[in-house]
Amino acid sequence: MDVAIIGAAMTDFGEREGWILELLSEAGRACLDDAGVAGDAVDHLVVSNMASGEFEGQTGTMNALASDLGVLPAYAERVDQTSASGGAGLQTAVRAVASGTSEMALLVGGEKMTHRKTAESADIVASVTHPFEYAHGVTLPSFAGLVARLYLSETAATCESLAAVAVKNHRHACSNPHAQFHKPITRSDVLESPLVADPLRLYDYCPVTDGSAALLCCPVSTAREYTDEFVRVTGIGGATDTHLVQHRPNPMQLRAVEESGQTALSMADCRPADIDVAELHDMATVLEPLQLEALGFAEQGDGWKHAIGEAIPSGPLSVNTSGGLKARGHPLGATGVAQAVEVYRQLLGEAGDRQVEADRGLTCNIGGFGNCVTTAVFEGGA
Amino acid sequence: MDVAIIGAAMTDFGEREGWILELLSEAGRACLDDAGVAGDAVDHLVVSNMASGEFEGQTGTMNALASDLGVLPAYAERVDQTSASGGAGLQTAVRAVASGTSEMALLVGGEKMTHRKTAESADIVASVTHPFEYAHGVTLPSFAGLVARLYLSETAATCESLAAVAVKNHRHACSNPHAQFHKPITRSDVLESPLVADPLRLYDYCPVTDGSAALLCCPVSTAREYTDEFVRVTGIGGATDTHLVQHRPNPMQLRAVEESGQTALSMADCRPADIDVAELHDMATVLEPLQLEALGFAEQGDGWKHAIGEAIPSGPLSVNTSGGLKARGHPLGATGVAQAVEVYRQLLGEAGDRQVEADRGLTCNIGGFGNCVTTAVFEGGA
Repeated sequence: MDVAIIGAAMTDFGEREGWILELLSEAGRACLDDAGVAGDAVDHLVVSNMASGEFEGQTGTMNALASDLGVLPAYAERVDQTSASGGAGLQTAVRAVASGTSEMALLVGGEKMTHRKTAESADIVASVTHPFEYAHGVTLPSFAGLVARLYLSETAATCESLAAVAVKNHRHACSNPHAQFHKPITRSDVLESPLVADPLRLYDYCPVTDGSAALLCCPVSTAREYTDEFVRVTGIGGATDTHLVQHRPNPMQLRAVEESGQTALSMADCRPADIDVAELHDMATVLEPLQLEALGFAEQGDGWKHAIGEAIPSGPLSVNTSGGLKARGHPLGATGVAQAVEVYRQLLGEAGDRQVEADRGLTCNIGGFGNCVTTAVFEGGA
Repeated sequence: MDVAIIGAAMTDFGEREGWILELLSEAGRACLDDAGVAGDAVDHLVVSNMASGEFEGQTGTMNALASDLGVLPAYAERVDQTSASGGAGLQTAVRAVASGTSEMALLVGGEKMTHRKTAESADIVASVTHPFEYAHGVTLPSFAGLVARLYLSETAATCESLAAVAVKNHRHACSNPHAQFHKPITRSDVLESPLVADPLRLYDYCPVTDGSAALLCCPVSTAREYTDEFVRVTGIGGATDTHLVQHRPNPMQLRAVEESGQTALSMADCRPADIDVAELHDMATVLEPLQLEALGFAEQGDGWKHAIGEAIPSGPLSVNTSGGLKARGHPLGATGVAQAVEVYRQLLGEAGDRQVEADRGLTCNIGGFGNCVTTAVFEGGA
């Protein structure tokens, strides 16, 4: 694919003042500045956002943002794929450039959530579930609990090995200035936190977060006009699994992750072993090992070994160096974009204290409980 | 552009039972049947919908629809551009095919609105306005009234000539079995209806509507495997104007319509005179002449002459043969798709009693008060 990322930015994640437009503007403006590109060079603006209408009674944010950033008369649209909205927006921006209809596409993902009571936020997020399952009380955190129970019974994983995911991602977030949490935690902290959906506890889950992240995409053929250092998007893939989780033969098998991963890796002409850094969707700890398995980094039932430091067949892989959803935070529409921002920084060697050696990266963003998934593969070097 | 439409369908528009998924499924299934294509051939599903979360407390509709139509594991996403969501979805589907990432993209637009009280619906729709203007009571219908007042004072148009738009579109809808209204009206009916936003009256506005419409897109190079008769999308364009209407030098000038129209016509290598049939966004009667002017079909200030039967410089042009938003109805996310469905039928000679002679067609779909606009150009013949 002939698509380059030439700029990236994100706001601080956490509890933020103001309304959604202010967050989106902050990230969008910082991204343009990062690339040294003027707003009027942008011809396509993609806003990734799940629910500003429900959270704030405000829609039309893509139009408000287009005005605010001075990118008029750029085409502006909002893309929603629930908690995978950011990853979906990335696919939209990449397709816009790859189709030849855009010369400069700005992607800005964001969500403003913390001003609502936790129960209200939970209700808005739960609106993604099929009404039939929701009526029976099954929400995304409870699906994670059910699947974690199954995972612990069918594999050698323990509550401790799942807690290790949270511990690792909190440790990473300490080196990410934009992360919501800068506090290392121990396995005991996780195992002694309040039970949410047995066997998962409070510290097994990501927090509620405000924040925004942005990326600027253009054809590789023109990227050098703007910068010597850019990242290429070499593969994208998206897939959907059954909307009713109960219709899946094996709920531990994230089929849309498998499918989207295969599409993206094959488009990028890569194998899992070629990937050095990955940002995965750890809404609950158990999802990180499940994605490692579904993406082909680990054998079925072995994904949990990565977080406790055991070798995995695909070789060295740094996962969620940003802190992941768990500790960087999870402002729904921003998450998939923030994942790509982290991979961009890692591939350019701009990741500061959390820098790892990396030539190729991957992001996996999940909507619903694996209902809709986008995966992207990136390569550094001009 | 190498993009063909090989199937189309729409539900009856009006007051419908059930939730949004049922409407989307009805149109999506009918579209696949129309093309004779099995669900598993679809690799990309685009849902155009503005506000199912706000109207029904239900999101994730693209995932629910993907399951319901059996198009799994197709990539599924929702695209929102407020009342231009349908047109935006068309652009997304076209870009997916044009970028080479999709071999078969299904676009389904829909909205379920009538179960809410009119004031509630109005409030949800008004959420697209900038909070600063909304706080002062300026909603989309009142913007239309303000601009109509200006139009009547600056041109030779009268309330009668605006009423002629409503009369014409109601007459057209009588031949469209899927339209919300099948009742011819007179200019007196319009002029004697209750005042809404002076000088515009109830019959100057489109109704609140439930409904869904769908299109199936694939590369032109493979379209012949499925059908002998298809329509080509030859140009697409999208643009944004200032989010605060008060920031526009002349609110009668729909700059995003101009910009998106020029982009689409230029991509299609067409002039306005080449277009035979157009579906325009007549949310209020005054918007139809304003679009005729902005798209280059009529001189500035002369657009109103079309509906009263006077010749326009671009030559014979049939406008809103479907009945338009005014009489076919306006289920937000469905509208832009339904516009393209009408042009598709006209170009294939399948428009029944409302058939006109047409080789090329155009659709223009507006979000907000000209805030975001998509235009597309179509050509018939395999």
